[in-house]
Amino acid sequence: MLTQPNTQRRTIVRVRNGRLTRDRDALVVEEPLEIRLALHSADGAHIIPLTTIMRTPGEDFELAAGFLFSEGIVRERDDITTIRYCTGPDVDAESRFNTLTVDMRPGVQPDLTHARRMFYISSSCGVCGKASLEALRTRGCMPLPDDDGVRIALPVLSGIDATLRRAQALFQKTGGLHAAALFTTDGDLLALHEDIGRHNAVDKLIGAHLLQGRLAVLNRAILLVSGRAGFEILQKALMARIPVVAAVGAPSSLAVTLARQFNMTLIGFLRGASFNGYAGEQRISIE
Amino acid sequence: MLTQPNTQRRTIVRVRNGRLTRDRDALVVEEPLEIRLALHSADGAHIIPLTTIMRTPGEDFELAAGFLFSEGIVRERDDITTIRYCTGPDVDAESRFNTLTVDMRPGVQPDLTHARRMFYISSSCGVCGKASLEALRTRGCMPLPDDDGVRIALPVLSGIDATLRRAQALFQKTGGLHAAALFTTDGDLLALHEDIGRHNAVDKLIGAHLLQGRLAVLNRAILLVSGRAGFEILQKALMARIPVVAAVGAPSSLAVTLARQFNMTLIGFLRGASFNGYAGEQRISIE
Repeated sequence: MLTQPNTQRRTIVRVRNGRLTRDRDALVVEEPLEIRLALHSADGAHIIPLTTIMRTPGEDFELAAGFLFSEGIVRERDDITTIRYCTGPDVDAESRFNTLTVDMRPGVQPDLTHARRMFYISSSCGVCGKASLEALRTRGCMPLPDDDGVRIALPVLSGIDATLRRAQALFQKTGGLHAAALFTTDGDLLALHEDIGRHNAVDKLIGAHLLQGRLAVLNRAILLVSGRAGFEILQKALMARIPVVAAVGAPSSLAVTLARQFNMTLIGFLRGASFNGYAGEQRISIE
Repeated sequence: MLTQPNTQRRTIVRVRNGRLTRDRDALVVEEPLEIRLALHSADGAHIIPLTTIMRTPGEDFELAAGFLFSEGIVRERDDITTIRYCTGPDVDAESRFNTLTVDMRPGVQPDLTHARRMFYISSSCGVCGKASLEALRTRGCMPLPDDDGVRIALPVLSGIDATLRRAQALFQKTGGLHAAALFTTDGDLLALHEDIGRHNAVDKLIGAHLLQGRLAVLNRAILLVSGRAGFEILQKALMARIPVVAAVGAPSSLAVTLARQFNMTLIGFLRGASFNGYAGEQRISIE
């Protein structure tokens, strides 16, 4: 079946032991998938936009079926008659494979009271990464300024992951917590927040600064997250106007696109003196 | 401030190089947090149950503030007047610190069209891990049978993480994908599904079996996930009646409680011949 690729090649900056090269690298694709439920009865069809999931394209029908089963909406194979993409002449290529309709067997009326959903449901097909980024602009997010004067020396970046590991006392006790840490451009640790969810750790960090009236500190700081950097992590950093996001793990395609569009610096695979730069390398100074 | 602990000690089975001991170990606590928004106007207060997040207790006010800021609901510090737990004489101890109300400054009417929410909102205080488990029973989830005859020999468990790593071809290309793999009780790889989201990888695996009419295979198989095992991973496995869940990373407190209550086997930190058993050790046979 025709579908979207699940990796994407991009030009990145590769730093190994302080030496910098430009290179092509594969990124995991992250795109939204909207799942719609079509209930059929004698009165006709009733379509319910159920949820939008950020996912890697591929096996979308399986993902939708598994999600509905895990949520208790689908109970057996025969509850589903068909699963289809929302295609048509008016649907553009980028969003063609990002909206799915699951047709339920006529008469099946699942209990949806436990189902998760999001408010922002479009009535037409059209969900895609690009639309997710446009939604950020609609919410008032502007690109970060070019001349913010934030510059980070290579040796600073090369030390912050070790600082994070030392500081994660709780992590060492249980091995189960994600961390979000804030550093100055000189590499000093300003804040460390932990949670079983990486997104929560970032929200705790941003929320602490908001409640203390110290949001301005974020505008000249580095956010380091312990795992991967997906779209939502970058979105949170953008809302808080954090210019530099570094991750110990890999970024997603959509995280890189967001960082580039909004003039943020995005570092991945940060391990000592080695890392990849995916966006905004002008903020990294090589002496 | 009085709050819940963020780690919990439990008795576990520790296996190191094939040798088994009983021990106490610290687990990261995972509990739901319901965030409510109170909008105040001349007409009085209007309370909106906004979302329920699975999180590690601690810094709950910061988490709520950061979440509202990231979602664009709170724009500045002064938008919030108070944040308070939903306490009272009729609220039991377990759920006391799991419901938060954020009071917005009178007159602030945030745009909620972009905000995520869940359908299953309780009108009273009372969200807690125990309630989350009870909700599963309400949805018809029964404990797995004692006599399902599933037995896994130690050497089988000791090999499946290496098999997973070898099979994760895509992971080696990008370093950004989580995996959910299914194994027979003899350690043969049956299926491997990948996604940037661990939950999605599990949904793809379960969905593929549902669509192929092969759900019964899951009832005698091992699910191995590449990262941590939280409540939602165990919930999905329970819905699909998978008796054994193994994780390369740590499980959460609520995942362990779920596994014990529903008679599932839960393995964590699986690395070759070393792992921890958190629940259902009767399915592991030591020769």
